[in-house]
Amino acid sequence: MVKLDFSNVLSEEIGHAGVSITEIEYYAKKAISLISEKPYKEFDFIGLYSQDLTAVKELANKARDYEYFILLGIGGSALGPKVILEALSPMHNLKKKPKIFIYDNVDPVTFKNIIENIDLRGTLINVISKSGATSETLASFLIFWKMIRDRKLDVKEHFVFTTDPEKGNLRRIADEYGIPCLFIPKNVVGRYSVLTPVGLFLLEVIGIKSEEMLEGVREVSEKALNNSLEENPMAVAASSLYLMDTIKGKKIVVFLPYSDRLKTLSEWFCQLWAESLGKEGKGTTPYPSLGSTDQHSQLQLWMEGPEDKVILFLSVERHGCQEEIPEEFHDIEGLRFLGGHTLEELINTEQLATEMALTINKKPNLKIIIPKINAYNIGQIFQFLQITTSMTGLLYGINPFNQPGVELGKRLTYGAMGRRGFESEGEEIKDYLKRQRFMI
Amino acid sequence: MVKLDFSNVLSEEIGHAGVSITEIEYYAKKAISLISEKPYKEFDFIGLYSQDLTAVKELANKARDYEYFILLGIGGSALGPKVILEALSPMHNLKKKPKIFIYDNVDPVTFKNIIENIDLRGTLINVISKSGATSETLASFLIFWKMIRDRKLDVKEHFVFTTDPEKGNLRRIADEYGIPCLFIPKNVVGRYSVLTPVGLFLLEVIGIKSEEMLEGVREVSEKALNNSLEENPMAVAASSLYLMDTIKGKKIVVFLPYSDRLKTLSEWFCQLWAESLGKEGKGTTPYPSLGSTDQHSQLQLWMEGPEDKVILFLSVERHGCQEEIPEEFHDIEGLRFLGGHTLEELINTEQLATEMALTINKKPNLKIIIPKINAYNIGQIFQFLQITTSMTGLLYGINPFNQPGVELGKRLTYGAMGRRGFESEGEEIKDYLKRQRFMI
Repeated sequence: MVKLDFSNVLSEEIGHAGVSITEIEYYAKKAISLISEKPYKEFDFIGLYSQDLTAVKELANKARDYEYFILLGIGGSALGPKVILEALSPMHNLKKKPKIFIYDNVDPVTFKNIIENIDLRGTLINVISKSGATSETLASFLIFWKMIRDRKLDVKEHFVFTTDPEKGNLRRIADEYGIPCLFIPKNVVGRYSVLTPVGLFLLEVIGIKSEEMLEGVREVSEKALNNSLEENPMAVAASSLYLMDTIKGKKIVVFLPYSDRLKTLSEWFCQLWAESLGKEGKGTTPYPSLGSTDQHSQLQLWMEGPEDKVILFLSVERHGCQEEIPEEFHDIEGLRFLGGHTLEELINTEQLATEMALTINKKPNLKIIIPKINAYNIGQIFQFLQITTSMTGLLYGINPFNQPGVELGKRLTYGAMGRRGFESEGEEIKDYLKRQRFMI
Repeated sequence: MVKLDFSNVLSEEIGHAGVSITEIEYYAKKAISLISEKPYKEFDFIGLYSQDLTAVKELANKARDYEYFILLGIGGSALGPKVILEALSPMHNLKKKPKIFIYDNVDPVTFKNIIENIDLRGTLINVISKSGATSETLASFLIFWKMIRDRKLDVKEHFVFTTDPEKGNLRRIADEYGIPCLFIPKNVVGRYSVLTPVGLFLLEVIGIKSEEMLEGVREVSEKALNNSLEENPMAVAASSLYLMDTIKGKKIVVFLPYSDRLKTLSEWFCQLWAESLGKEGKGTTPYPSLGSTDQHSQLQLWMEGPEDKVILFLSVERHGCQEEIPEEFHDIEGLRFLGGHTLEELINTEQLATEMALTINKKPNLKIIIPKINAYNIGQIFQFLQITTSMTGLLYGINPFNQPGVELGKRLTYGAMGRRGFESEGEEIKDYLKRQRFMI
């Protein structure tokens, strides 16, 4: 089971910058009591360790025969699959098939580069949108749809939709054209959807059994409502991060895993935390980082900049590869001392030294520890962070599952693009463009 | 020339959240006056548009004949080259030679994956460290060094060092073994070094002439000391960002380019800004973002979370590719309205709509605009951001070129790894590990 070390948010370690065990216990218990009521139906994500995997496995079986696999999605529909790919099959396209491209933007050059590197005849395209209404995803879908049809290929053989079981544009098109579909359970929202077919389909495509990941998820999920704090690290993490903001004014949570394979996990966590908690003026800003690389980028700021951060380390005990640093240049001390150690020792030492340097300087930090990177533990981390985030939302007293703040931007986009019903937004855009700009 | 739109930090657009033109002018003039004195010798980076390129070109000429090119470096020695590769030759390894790997961590699994994808006989390894004392870079250098020698290959044919012209371990080894060297000018520090051989060597390796980039750099550099604000957008940007922090309490600067090719530029900027300004309790936290992708990740937080951010857009007028969204599914409005537009229109509309949504909600934002992504403009952006950052440092009254806060972590790493002279740090680490941990 994933472990949590919360010593370095306590006043025992960091003095006045820290909080007491009693305070942490109080809000941890409160978080457990709040989540036990499951005040939102979207808490269904906690039960995802048990689900019918038949369709995912059948389609993945077929998908593995393709040369190329393209995933169209954005936000919660792309970040989870990205983590799965990069954590569990790093540098995939240099070694394995199908070659996988995750297109999660509307950048025309990225699009062109993907097209130049595939052959459509051997390509399966997984379009992911819960609502079936995401402009970016639909725009790229439309282009691929026309390309497949122009080449007289069978759309049923080249598309798989991952969408809502009942409604939306993709569901409607799937029915009309017989496109194979995977479904995102009704009550699971985008940023909590990695453990649905959104992530599991790709997991199976790269040859890993969903059961491995879901077994890890089960262990964490079963502890979510456990009232004993020794059994519920998520409640302690939620309480710590909540207190660090509300009592200590730490408005930034730096997520800092020490493994290249977890760089994308930082981005996934940042979406989860930012969209879930950033509302009603509340929440903190999650910062995507990577160790030890960002010690040479951000550490200066964390150590001597504004006192507004709590660092959330993610440490990997075993990297699964024992590359030794050779003993050479005995006469140069700056190289000699490295010899005989492994790269694993060095990266883990960098983590420890950074944690210690922060602690000595009274900078609060927490540490999540996993034994190694595999589907089981990545499943645990996903669920650990999802539960921690939603618990923190309940402590803030906000709904961790909606995102009302993105609507205006969408409506203005519709207006500018000439969507019917958004004529007044179109006018607003025109007025804005006419206004005087201060430009150099 | 790169342009700056600063309308949306003005009270004309965002009311009480904004500042006045007079305030911006005052600090912009002050920034110009401060930089004109060149109070630190490290301001030499401003003159880099004029430099001798002979060695870079000769070695790059040779490097292009290799099958594989590995860059070893971290922080400022890796981020600049990464931007150059991803902005100017996206998806390089799927299409071009030499295949390029930038190893900027000590992750043993990434190391193994690189080794499995190359043939050492056809590999050139560029080791970049100004000081020649960076543990992470030296550790991976030692492993490659031994591999090359074990295979009886000639180190002179497989290594190029980019380092200080006079001192350091790499300089010493180069002299002893005759390794080809490129030099980072004495007064240019890591995070301001992309326009030295650190970045230019890779630029030439991917087939682009340094002169193209440096020509863009020249135009920006020549304006750095210009007293007329209409000619000095860097001073206006520095003034705006300084005021947003010190008067308006915006402690986070979100860097938001709208192009996949500029995702790494966000990380490069964040290193530059964080290490340059985060000291003496001052500075703000730079946040690496990407449009339109992160509208589905961070926008909710920017719109409705704490009022602590200023957004720095980077907009690209022409993406260089006119992929049209086809007109299909006329009966489904959510798809119909997209038809007939291009992906370029969509991504640029997303940028505009987000800028407008933020402005309507009184969230300050600035916009940098470049006509398109090429070496000339990327050079301009590099220099624009380097000048803006160092000017902002002068306004804060700090030294934008040092990083005293990272020393403790380095010393503790030395102690843990058994480096001579760091025995007391080794003891400190042992004591820390013996202390009681609060762990779940």
